[in-house]
Amino acid sequence: MLEFEEINSLQNGRVKQIVKWRERGPRDRDQVVLIEGYRALRRALEAEYPVDELYFCPELYQGENEEGLLREFVARGARLFRLGAAAFAKIAYRDRPEGLLGIGPQRRRGLKGLTIPPEKAFFLVAEQIEKPGNLGTMMRSADAVGVDGLILCDSRTDLYNPNVVRASTGNLFTLPIAEASSEEAIDWLKAAGLRILAASPHVEKLYFDVDMKGPLAIVVGSEQYGLSETWMQAADERLRLPMMGKADSLNVSTASALLLYECLRQRLVG
Amino acid sequence: MLEFEEINSLQNGRVKQIVKWRERGPRDRDQVVLIEGYRALRRALEAEYPVDELYFCPELYQGENEEGLLREFVARGARLFRLGAAAFAKIAYRDRPEGLLGIGPQRRRGLKGLTIPPEKAFFLVAEQIEKPGNLGTMMRSADAVGVDGLILCDSRTDLYNPNVVRASTGNLFTLPIAEASSEEAIDWLKAAGLRILAASPHVEKLYFDVDMKGPLAIVVGSEQYGLSETWMQAADERLRLPMMGKADSLNVSTASALLLYECLRQRLVG
Repeated sequence: MLEFEEINSLQNGRVKQIVKWRERGPRDRDQVVLIEGYRALRRALEAEYPVDELYFCPELYQGENEEGLLREFVARGARLFRLGAAAFAKIAYRDRPEGLLGIGPQRRRGLKGLTIPPEKAFFLVAEQIEKPGNLGTMMRSADAVGVDGLILCDSRTDLYNPNVVRASTGNLFTLPIAEASSEEAIDWLKAAGLRILAASPHVEKLYFDVDMKGPLAIVVGSEQYGLSETWMQAADERLRLPMMGKADSLNVSTASALLLYECLRQRLVG
Repeated sequence: MLEFEEINSLQNGRVKQIVKWRERGPRDRDQVVLIEGYRALRRALEAEYPVDELYFCPELYQGENEEGLLREFVARGARLFRLGAAAFAKIAYRDRPEGLLGIGPQRRRGLKGLTIPPEKAFFLVAEQIEKPGNLGTMMRSADAVGVDGLILCDSRTDLYNPNVVRASTGNLFTLPIAEASSEEAIDWLKAAGLRILAASPHVEKLYFDVDMKGPLAIVVGSEQYGLSETWMQAADERLRLPMMGKADSLNVSTASALLLYECLRQRLVG
């Protein structure tokens, strides 16, 4: 039997507190992150990310593994709260709530928190990304190619925005992510002997003409302005994606995935 | 001098009507599409997409080319309405309105509206995509590689949802897009002699091991369920993207871009 507290009132203090944590101010003040949905919570568990409290509502479950997930979290020390459907709807931030929401601490790390492997180091650097959905999708793609880390430079997005968590499908918790200034990141990459590959629509060289087999970092810039002059100057290679249509640019998370997968392709093909 | 009507009242009938058109019901009943922002309107103009009315608010302009754009639309027969900042904020659907919003007719076409080139035909087929943002981003990527058309099968997204327009950055208007059932599309592709390449996480063959130089259609499925059995059976090749991390799938618009760009890469490299 699972032990849990029961909450049905929409006026319950915990329910009200979670609603407040949807805003960045209260969330950062209390240093918490909201983790909603089976998939994101499963990733958090796999990554041994701490989840202190878990709110659940069986009426909203969409699968059959929710109870097993709860047990695993309880084994790791989480407290459980069972909510009525109305109370859960109030704390949920997703359109189609799945009846699972966890609360964990924010964990921020700098460049020292990253590990550089002895061979084939592979990092993604994102400068001044603005949209949480893009940042989350970049985390998902970065995980998919197995990067050694994601470095966020001069970030304009709150790392713990619920839309980052959602779009990352929980990879926010599994991926090594560091926050740094561009200057710090450039120094760190150069000291580590990594080649810096900067993406820009304004250069000639096509991305698949660049050798990506050695240790490197792929660097992409903001949605609106692309990469800063700082990064363009620091880069060992500047490369672009071919554009054959009417438009002059791609979504930044799409562009990142294309560069990451080209690197993976070259390394797999050998 | 540009001729325009002036609207400052938030109670103005046109203002109220545009707000209503944000909802799908009224929008489809009146068969209109809202086109907001410089970039999307520029694309519509390039594509000679009809825009009947153009609402502008110079206080919100973010660039210097807005007036030139207005002139071009007027030359093509659009009526202009100048709005006060409060009235424009009411009709805008974007977070950061740029002071430009056009109204045009919806234009829907079936497979007969598409043109198959004699060589290297290249289509993207999307089955049951649910999220407007994903569909729009797919249009942007499809334009970028220069596809001959996008076929939406059994669509679960409203093609004229404002978030499709936004995420497509206006490529909704430049790209040949057809709506069809999966059965119709399969018949059409086979009759045209195009190879059908179906993406699925559950097959062995990696996407870059498939020859994509000949005439083909790349087919991707819904966010939640992937491709239907109908498409998996109809496919000439089934391929997957390598996944090296914790996650088991990519965002569908990311996956589409990776497949589209691999095809482009193979054709450019020769």
